[in-house]
Order: sequence, then structure tokens, then C-alpha cells
Amino acid sequence: MTRLDRQFAFLAEAEKLKSVTRATPIHDASRPENSGEHSWSLALYALTLADQAPEGVTIDRVIRMLLLHDLVEIDVGDVPIHSQGGTAHGAEAILKAEAAAAERIFGLLPEDQGAELLALWREFEANESPDAIFAKSLDRVQPVLLNHQSGGGSWIEYDVTFPQLEERIGTKISRGAPAVWDWVRARVESWFERRGL
Amino acid sequence: MTRLDRQFAFLAEAEKLKSVTRATPIHDASRPENSGEHSWSLALYALTLADQAPEGVTIDRVIRMLLLHDLVEIDVGDVPIHSQGGTAHGAEAILKAEAAAAERIFGLLPEDQGAELLALWREFEANESPDAIFAKSLDRVQPVLLNHQSGGGSWIEYDVTFPQLEERIGTKISRGAPAVWDWVRARVESWFERRGL
Repeated sequence: MTRLDRQFAFLAEAEKLKSVTRATPIHDASRPENSGEHSWSLALYALTLADQAPEGVTIDRVIRMLLLHDLVEIDVGDVPIHSQGGTAHGAEAILKAEAAAAERIFGLLPEDQGAELLALWREFEANESPDAIFAKSLDRVQPVLLNHQSGGGSWIEYDVTFPQLEERIGTKISRGAPAVWDWVRARVESWFERRGL
Repeated sequence: MTRLDRQFAFLAEAEKLKSVTRATPIHDASRPENSGEHSWSLALYALTLADQAPEGVTIDRVIRMLLLHDLVEIDVGDVPIHSQGGTAHGAEAILKAEAAAAERIFGLLPEDQGAELLALWREFEANESPDAIFAKSLDRVQPVLLNHQSGGGSWIEYDVTFPQLEERIGTKISRGAPAVWDWVRARVESWFERRGL
């Protein structure tokens, strides 16, 4: 196989991410969001909120991470953060399946390129480098705003309260982008208040 | 309005691109592709096919361009390349509407940032800089492969022949990424041959 054969095999496989659905609905609540378009939103978040990133963050690396971060869901599916699997975060089985999926999917690429993108995905997952921490925080912000924009989304489905949102998500957003969580918090808190949640 | 107010107004507006449908179906032909997930695919194409870019191309700028390139469709919709509007490319009215849409949508951002992203969008549209030419060629490649992967897609809908594909699309891909068109051509030509097209 030539280099282009392998690159196009990877790109054809990646197309399948558009069939992985998430718990969050799109803006008008007409259907669930899929993980392909979600990945686009996140890359656009990184580009738009670049001036919110702490010093030491390289936005173009964050964008690359976010373009790739969900590809493993082609094999494993999306685990909603407010579901059982989502809150029991470390869930060994899921992490193991995702690691295997990453090896399979990035393994479609030419070896050097596959290794590079696999390392970037692992850096994102490890959530330790400044780029990964900022990327992860954006991955937590966008579903909050999309739930809010669409009228409640997965908060309703999973009976989420504001303290749960703050604990499961707010703390993670704060870690990478504190001013962003302050802004989002002020916008969404009233949604929960109005419902006594 | 604060800077974050404007950035989040832009991001909320951008979510609507997920409701703009295209002529190309997704990989398994189960539904039309939307312009949000299409934008993700293109950014991933740029990342993956970086070594196909001519000298002088900055891939991270290409990725940024591709993340933004279709936002104007929130106002104008997608004009399929094989449709009447698509082939009569220069169609003044469409170009004018897209230019107005770009001003409106990027105008939601803080002024400095809006001006920067509007300039990037205009650079893409002008199709003159090395980054724009490469970005445009990827924008032509992905629908060809998605039509092929999904069994024909918009080629069937618009009765496209191979000479038409070559003229409308192949020449444009060749301009930015000649080896990519050679590869794609060799894969898709037999689809048309089998149908006597």
C-alpha cells in the first residue's frame, strides 16, 4: 500500500464518526448531535476562545487534538457524561476499549503519521499537558451550551441537578478555562433554578 | 457586551450549520451530509494529507480556513456543485449573498477577531494564495470520495458523467493537489465506466 492508500483508508474510516450519536441534541432540538459535527464545533471553540487559553497553550495543537479526540467512538460509541458509564469515569473496560480503538484506527495511517496522531490522542486522554487540559475543558463546555440552547437536552433525560453539573463538569471546565466556566455558570444556573434543580 | 458574550454569540450561531444539508450522502448513504460535519471532515483531510500540500502551504492555516469556510451557508444554504447553481459558478447573486452572510456572522465576534476570521474566509474564497488553493482542492476531493463510498450519491441525482466530474472537479483538485487527483481518479473512474457514463 502506498502512503496515499493508507491516508485515504483512514479518512474513509473516519467518515463513520458521523453515525455515532451523542446525548446532546443539536441547537433546535430536532435530533441528537453526532460525534463528527461535535468535533467540528470543538475545533471552532478552540479557534474562537483562543484568548481564554492559559499561557503555554498552542491553539493549533489543541485544534488538532479536538479534530481527533472522538475517533475511538467509531468502535466504542459515545458514553454520555451524565449516564452511569459517564459518571463512573475511570470505567476500566471503556478506557481499555478506547485504547484498542485508537491503535486500530490510527494504525490505518502510514506508520510515522499514525504514531504521531496516536501520541496526540493519548496526550489528550492523559489530560496533563496544558494543551490537553484546555482541549478537555472545551469538550466539557460545548455540550453545556448546546443543552442550554436546545432547551435542556440531556439534563432532562438524565435528571441532572445544578450541583451535579457543577461537580461533574464545572470543576473540569474551571481547570482549563476558569473565566469560561464563570460565564457559562451565570447563563445556565437559572435554567436549573426555574425547575427547582 | 463583553468579549466572551460576543464569542459565545458567534459559537451559538455557528451551531446552525449542522442543519444545512448537502447533496452528498454520508458514508452509508443513510442520510445527507450536513455542512458542519463536512467541515470537520475537511479539517481532518488537511491534517491527514499535509504531506501532499505544495511548498509554502501552512497546514494550520488551511485547517482554520476549512473550519470556517462554510459558515456563510447558515444564511445562503449549500449550492451543490453539480446543480445548475453549482456549475454556473460565478453566479453573482450567490456570491453577493455569501459575502453579506460572512459580514453578518463574523460580525458577531469581537471586532479584531471578526476582522481576522473574515479576512481568512475571503482569502479562501479568492482561491489565490497557496493555503486557499490547497484548502479548495480538499473541499473538492472529500465529496468525490464520499459519493464513491456511499454508492454514487449526488452523481446519480445529477446524472454526472466522468468527463463532467473531470472538468468540474478534477481540474480544481489538480490545481492544489495533483497527486491526490491522480489517486482519486484511478479509484472512481470505474464507477462511471460500469454505468457507461
